[in-house]
Amino acid sequence: MPADHSARRAALRRELVARELDALLVTDLLNIRYLTGFTGSNAALLVTASDTPGNEDRTVVCTDGRYVTQIAAQVPDLRADIDRASAAHLVDVAARAGGRVGFESHMVTVEQWESWRPQLGAHDLVPAPRLVETLRMIKDEYEIGLLREACACADAALADLVARGGLRPGRTEKAVARELENLMFDHGADGISFETIVAAGANSAVPHHRPTGAVLASGDFVKLDFGAQVGGYHSDMTRTYVLGSAAEWQRDVYALVARAQAAGRGALNPGTAVADVDAAARAVIDDAGHGELFLHGLGHGVGLEIHEAPGIGQRGTGTLSVGETVTVEPGVYFAGRGGVRIEDTLVVREHEPELLTRTTKDLTVV
Amino acid sequence: MPADHSARRAALRRELVARELDALLVTDLLNIRYLTGFTGSNAALLVTASDTPGNEDRTVVCTDGRYVTQIAAQVPDLRADIDRASAAHLVDVAARAGGRVGFESHMVTVEQWESWRPQLGAHDLVPAPRLVETLRMIKDEYEIGLLREACACADAALADLVARGGLRPGRTEKAVARELENLMFDHGADGISFETIVAAGANSAVPHHRPTGAVLASGDFVKLDFGAQVGGYHSDMTRTYVLGSAAEWQRDVYALVARAQAAGRGALNPGTAVADVDAAARAVIDDAGHGELFLHGLGHGVGLEIHEAPGIGQRGTGTLSVGETVTVEPGVYFAGRGGVRIEDTLVVREHEPELLTRTTKDLTVV
Repeated sequence: MPADHSARRAALRRELVARELDALLVTDLLNIRYLTGFTGSNAALLVTASDTPGNEDRTVVCTDGRYVTQIAAQVPDLRADIDRASAAHLVDVAARAGGRVGFESHMVTVEQWESWRPQLGAHDLVPAPRLVETLRMIKDEYEIGLLREACACADAALADLVARGGLRPGRTEKAVARELENLMFDHGADGISFETIVAAGANSAVPHHRPTGAVLASGDFVKLDFGAQVGGYHSDMTRTYVLGSAAEWQRDVYALVARAQAAGRGALNPGTAVADVDAAARAVIDDAGHGELFLHGLGHGVGLEIHEAPGIGQRGTGTLSVGETVTVEPGVYFAGRGGVRIEDTLVVREHEPELLTRTTKDLTVV
Repeated sequence: MPADHSARRAALRRELVARELDALLVTDLLNIRYLTGFTGSNAALLVTASDTPGNEDRTVVCTDGRYVTQIAAQVPDLRADIDRASAAHLVDVAARAGGRVGFESHMVTVEQWESWRPQLGAHDLVPAPRLVETLRMIKDEYEIGLLREACACADAALADLVARGGLRPGRTEKAVARELENLMFDHGADGISFETIVAAGANSAVPHHRPTGAVLASGDFVKLDFGAQVGGYHSDMTRTYVLGSAAEWQRDVYALVARAQAAGRGALNPGTAVADVDAAARAVIDDAGHGELFLHGLGHGVGLEIHEAPGIGQRGTGTLSVGETVTVEPGVYFAGRGGVRIEDTLVVREHEPELLTRTTKDLTVV
């Protein structure tokens, strides 16, 4: 099933009409990729509100000479102009067409904006932030397919790592991180989602620890937070293991985080406020008296970016919709001692969320 | 030899005074790292023009609660405020102090800027783009030491790869790229500079080819463009090998690019216009009748970013100064057949440039 870029542009046009905009100048490269399929490093896109699917002759994409062949192949359905100053060129196109033109004010710098104003006149350039990002929150089945592949790739790599004894006393965090990343490539990843976190022993209490030369030891928690990229889409998963044998305090904190994570997953229903999803997981940890050790929000959207809307935290706003793909990742961190985080990537569905990261969450002693 | 952040701030203050600015609000994280040493992911910095080294009590850095310990350790010499909205907080601080406050208009989005204006009043917020980037062009010896380490790491990794027969018929581009990246880590890299380019056979004619499953074959050019990161600084090097035995056309194009590259290096002198450095290398290729096959600029600055000022190309402006660290990387690309690029990272010095990437540039058949 191919991506339906035309349908995405049609959805964007409905937002433009609602805002009385005649066009949107899209300059964020991920938003352009989402709306057209183009993956080059220089592009701008002018989406004209009055176009209709199959009749998009006033919608124009622009890139530079390096991408003449690529843009013809990736975006056969739109007029493609070639100009090194892609955004400035489309400001000119928009100026000739007239009307109210929105721009991505959350991405455009003051310097760019100042350079465009003489071309178009300030009153016709309207801040229109996050219109495409808002559409991107709800994934279509093409996108979910890629997210599913990315998550499967991460699952397979982790299973391999554990099966070959990759988590053993005496190895460094860095060595484990590199092996896990290599295994993701072996299983078909196009890239990694972010710098892999491997945190052993006391380091596991640091939420976003960078791997060091620290050596894994028997009795340690080992926390792995990592992901694979497939077709531009990111997976995100955290698992925490115990090396050798688990002490009682480790079993207790693991069980607590697992219960909180299950509560968070259980609250992932369409119509639920994201702050309530966070609260569902947080209440479990609060009730155990460890609320102050859960140092971050519960999760975030994931897609073309590793972190995207919605943010699922205490201050989060809005409610969930079917098709949103998010993480659920509570953690409890005892500074100087160790911590546990358990994280899945899931799709919000009508009845219950679809779990994309399928590695077991039972306490695993390796 | 440690980094002298105070001296860097003093140099910035001279620029502020010259522009009649009372302060600069720095929001770019790399610029903050350069001026303070802080490496966290949320920060802003207000550099007040009237401060002096040893007496910087009106210069303030700000980050959020996650970094309380880290900022105290990394920036012991400045007042550090803790506020999640770091930039908005420092706009308040600046508003209380009054005066003309510059901001990084090439980095600040229109949305951020609009959110600050009510706090400070539009006429006191002055676009002041690229002040820190301009200082960053000239590296101090601390920075050159890290660049030297990064380049040595890349040299050692490539030597290892060749010595162990890593460039052999039957391997995929992807496998070679991963081995080279792993070897950089083995030799002490903190990270890689960018996604490694390995391009074999006809793919070597694509300047920025991404590694694929294509298999190396005898008679191929194999082009490797890669780098290591050490302490935040990037190396950048390209070498092109021939597998098996070199055909006459391959020897010819290699010799041509090598001569052009030597001409470019030879022009790297303080006071030389960057456009003339490009021209020195380009003339060699033009004279051979292949000017239209040299598809890109000659080089770029390298430091905390893999690509930074100055751009060394036909449209480049400005002249070189002692301490600038740049690449020289001409290429000649025969579409569908193969191409050669040879790239070094060098420091502009008083008499002749210092070569940081020391791998041989003699034609090497492996």
